[in-house]
Amino acid sequence: MTIKEIADFLRARDNFDILTHNYPDGDCLGSAAALALALQRLGKNARVITTDRPKKFKYLFRELREQEFETGCIVSVDVADEKLLGPKNGPVYEGRVELCIDHHRISRVNAPVKYVDPNAAAAGEIIFELLPELGVELDKTLADCLYTAISTDTGCFRYTNTTAKTLRIAADLLEAGCDSEFINKEMFETKSKLRLELERKILDNLIYCADGRCAIIYTTREMTEGLSDDETEGIASIPRQIEGVKMGITVREKEFDYKISVRTNDGVDACAFCRQFGGGGHAAASGCTLHGSLGEVLDRLKAAAELAL
Amino acid sequence: MTIKEIADFLRARDNFDILTHNYPDGDCLGSAAALALALQRLGKNARVITTDRPKKFKYLFRELREQEFETGCIVSVDVADEKLLGPKNGPVYEGRVELCIDHHRISRVNAPVKYVDPNAAAAGEIIFELLPELGVELDKTLADCLYTAISTDTGCFRYTNTTAKTLRIAADLLEAGCDSEFINKEMFETKSKLRLELERKILDNLIYCADGRCAIIYTTREMTEGLSDDETEGIASIPRQIEGVKMGITVREKEFDYKISVRTNDGVDACAFCRQFGGGGHAAASGCTLHGSLGEVLDRLKAAAELAL
Repeated sequence: MTIKEIADFLRARDNFDILTHNYPDGDCLGSAAALALALQRLGKNARVITTDRPKKFKYLFRELREQEFETGCIVSVDVADEKLLGPKNGPVYEGRVELCIDHHRISRVNAPVKYVDPNAAAAGEIIFELLPELGVELDKTLADCLYTAISTDTGCFRYTNTTAKTLRIAADLLEAGCDSEFINKEMFETKSKLRLELERKILDNLIYCADGRCAIIYTTREMTEGLSDDETEGIASIPRQIEGVKMGITVREKEFDYKISVRTNDGVDACAFCRQFGGGGHAAASGCTLHGSLGEVLDRLKAAAELAL
Repeated sequence: MTIKEIADFLRARDNFDILTHNYPDGDCLGSAAALALALQRLGKNARVITTDRPKKFKYLFRELREQEFETGCIVSVDVADEKLLGPKNGPVYEGRVELCIDHHRISRVNAPVKYVDPNAAAAGEIIFELLPELGVELDKTLADCLYTAISTDTGCFRYTNTTAKTLRIAADLLEAGCDSEFINKEMFETKSKLRLELERKILDNLIYCADGRCAIIYTTREMTEGLSDDETEGIASIPRQIEGVKMGITVREKEFDYKISVRTNDGVDACAFCRQFGGGGHAAASGCTLHGSLGEVLDRLKAAAELAL
């Protein structure tokens, strides 16, 4: 399907339920809000179905009208797998998606019509290209939604998924009047007091081993109490950022075990490291699960890191 | 002067000393390295004059040939004021700059020929536009230099100086093959162990007042021992980033006094706050100097913050 055919598909239908994934992020919410708003501009009914609308994303929905209607067409945006619709929406919508718009390399949504572009840094890039095909003009509100989508999925253009096309789209969004100053501040420069307190505790307990080539951080259940997943996100990137560190290990105490995240630099094999503990993943980012006391878990990881590096 | 006239000026001369400012950053080094390399590609002699070449910027100079020659033409890049040439280069070059290329709103370099574009997010944007006028093709090495210049001066496209033009130039640099993955990692995702240790100590001593609307951090001389300015840079942005904080205050112990930096959100007047202590600055970023013991200084700031908020 071409983007033009997707536009034709949408124009021929009405009463849209636009689905997002659970633990919704800036890309799925920004893309879904922009698509719903564009459809409303065409005189259609549309609503965004979410498991949750975090307070910090409220501005995305400021112009979207709440509409009551019987579902006519179900569209998923940025949902890689129907399992990710979440416990509330999954049972209602599973197997019923008619159009899947996504940018994940592996798409496990069963839908008769799919538009999946794994080269798009964010689903927001696809919605951006859809707007002119739908005949909807890009305005400030739509640009705010799409800038949020694209900037959050690229770490404000810092991650390797950022392409020349991504940057040119962002340029168009700035010209359309998007409030990048507000969005960047909200998304990238605001930390909750609890999150900062967690960082403080993590740094207090930071462990170096293998002559400083490995850094280990850990969180106990007590340390993360009251913090949302949104707020603990990104912690695993802390140890690998340290100069000279080839392997950064994050240990998270869960109810019955410890979840281990391993991130590596300079070609050190994180997957091989995790495999010895029954885990796996990618060469630079892998994970595994360990049991025992925190002290035992840390000792095993330190010993393995000394051997690996 | 147009950019074409600047190119003509450079083409008509040879044996270039290209000056940068003291405490050199990614923009002055990346822009100067790109300009020197472009001039060498035209068969001319050119060298970059710096007070210092921090290790992390070494890759900018990998293709620049070291050349011995008698100075023929002096060009300053990203230097807002001749005073910023530094104690070693200032006496040698002050009053002798022939061409000043800059993007600062106020340019205090006395030169017969000036090209100052305050709308450019970085001096690197100007050098980017100069290349085709010089007839030098943008290749990977030049793109690495200019991407470094532009990304560092915009906080990787996060600061408000980022324009649509900035993003489109960055897109061209990506297409020219610049290694944005390496550069972003080096510039934005690597922290020294000492810097991380400083952050830990700062967070250990973080003070909230005015019902959490003010956050104060401080560094003692002991805490910053062994850290370069480069590594302590950016600390003043920590307290204002905290959710709910309207005024973030950073207290830095110096040899004889305390330097205070005040950053505010939501229209709180940092300048008025600092003026009561004999300081000043901008509405959202100001500074002042206080004397006394650390305890006294913190008490005065806390009392003033309670009154101001």
